[in-house]
Amino acid sequence: MEQQFIAWLRERLPPHPLLQLGPGDDAAILRMAGVDGCVITVDLLTDRVDFILAEVDPRRIGRKALAVNLSDLAAMAARPLAAVLAVALPKKGAGELAIKLYEGILPLAERYDLAIAGGDTNTWDGPLVITATLLGQVTVDGPLCRKGAMPGDRILVTGAFGGSILGRQFDFEPRVREALLLNRRYDLHAGMDVSDGLAIDLSRLSRESGCGAIVETDRVPIHADSVRLARQQNDGRTPLDHALGDGEDFELILAVSPSEAATMLADQPLGIPLTDIGSFGDTPGLWTRGSDGHIEPLAATGWEHAFE
Amino acid sequence: MEQQFIAWLRERLPPHPLLQLGPGDDAAILRMAGVDGCVITVDLLTDRVDFILAEVDPRRIGRKALAVNLSDLAAMAARPLAAVLAVALPKKGAGELAIKLYEGILPLAERYDLAIAGGDTNTWDGPLVITATLLGQVTVDGPLCRKGAMPGDRILVTGAFGGSILGRQFDFEPRVREALLLNRRYDLHAGMDVSDGLAIDLSRLSRESGCGAIVETDRVPIHADSVRLARQQNDGRTPLDHALGDGEDFELILAVSPSEAATMLADQPLGIPLTDIGSFGDTPGLWTRGSDGHIEPLAATGWEHAFE
Repeated sequence: MEQQFIAWLRERLPPHPLLQLGPGDDAAILRMAGVDGCVITVDLLTDRVDFILAEVDPRRIGRKALAVNLSDLAAMAARPLAAVLAVALPKKGAGELAIKLYEGILPLAERYDLAIAGGDTNTWDGPLVITATLLGQVTVDGPLCRKGAMPGDRILVTGAFGGSILGRQFDFEPRVREALLLNRRYDLHAGMDVSDGLAIDLSRLSRESGCGAIVETDRVPIHADSVRLARQQNDGRTPLDHALGDGEDFELILAVSPSEAATMLADQPLGIPLTDIGSFGDTPGLWTRGSDGHIEPLAATGWEHAFE
Repeated sequence: MEQQFIAWLRERLPPHPLLQLGPGDDAAILRMAGVDGCVITVDLLTDRVDFILAEVDPRRIGRKALAVNLSDLAAMAARPLAAVLAVALPKKGAGELAIKLYEGILPLAERYDLAIAGGDTNTWDGPLVITATLLGQVTVDGPLCRKGAMPGDRILVTGAFGGSILGRQFDFEPRVREALLLNRRYDLHAGMDVSDGLAIDLSRLSRESGCGAIVETDRVPIHADSVRLARQQNDGRTPLDHALGDGEDFELILAVSPSEAATMLADQPLGIPLTDIGSFGDTPGLWTRGSDGHIEPLAATGWEHAFE
């Protein structure tokens, strides 16, 4: 049955100019002439951590597995090239599940002109695991890294934050086009995508850049989902708390000079808002301005894998 | 603790000329100028299918995760370039387990001059899953594919088969150097590595090449482990049965013309034996010669993932 699934998949994979040899051999071969800087990223998603298989259409899980990696390419301002996928499927219903996962994967791959170069399809007695490795290409505008923010730089973000668990964690659009456009048009010092949480991810970007960050919390763009979630949960966490710590927003954090920030904010070149939420500073750590105007620590809330 | 593990790993990863940007950012960047044909392969290993975590040193599991992918690069006659790894760790003892896995991965990566370009380290309530994606480079001698065997070609294999479960499934040496040497020196028509079983994998190579294969079963090189395993299990399966169907030998199957086969067998250019075990033919399927000299079907034994 594994071979039947592979045959099903090989029929459905569109040809792609990058694929010198597609899936079906021991490995695929990609035509990479002209690709100097090759960006590579991998993400592994597990049942009950990144999705709940019993509660969600597997097509959305397949889509998410690809989309989180596309978001990592966006974070590097890289152009998507190719993907390989590996899955561990629960034995019961494995064939049907594999097909549904790929029904979510294939349209998104096509949308971003991503060659599906192969995969590894396994069954086991455990829960669903899906992992994707993506290759991308650094453009002539260079890569966007976490290192490079300078004290005095402004913190710009795309879109709005919080409450992604209400559905955006699956259906978000990775900011690939936005990152490529901004990197082409403006001088970006540093950037990353928000997967674990705006606060924790901003603290990571600051640390890699050897500086700190001061967030004007009243300027953080709060998604309507944050408001809905805070109301639903009614546990004392505010919409701002959700925006700072929920994660899986897959928006971009960017570091740019104050003058470039002013230009970008005036241009608003994307279909989604660009917002200035504060500045990078000399003092390491994450900070905010208290009600009295003084600087005080801001918790780096967000998701971290527990190691017991 | 996830961040502590990543810090531990970043300290231990040797610098590598391929790494323009190593682990720690949203993605890594590889210097790929000059790499035209880029080979890419992924394998996912799960507890109780590919190893039993409770019974084996995790260093051997980490090593195996890399080695099975190196074997896929060998199967393409590709030079190893870089790897990314993703793991789902059981929460309890996750930090210690992650370190041990990498203690098995790093020496093998160094041995094959493989850049460790990054990874994704997760914890969850499920069993251990480890996946590696490897990139390799097609050499000037071209890739070795499953397609290309011609009726009349001889079937050559490296090494010996069967009984890998007694330990070789972890400690095997991927045939990277052997494949590169043979591909440089001889005209190889097709090739693959034996992961699922000599019989099933040979049947796959034949099918991709549009021909069949006739195995002279008395010539199949039987590993001493096959004999030991047949004796231990005493279930009626012979050492030959184990050699044909056990899998995880990670030896090479090659298709070459009769004259090239004669040269290779006379040269014996490897430190391990090259053996002629039969020929490719016009009739699709897997065949052997019965005791009366007539051709009869040979079962394509080996491992296949069960889809229920």
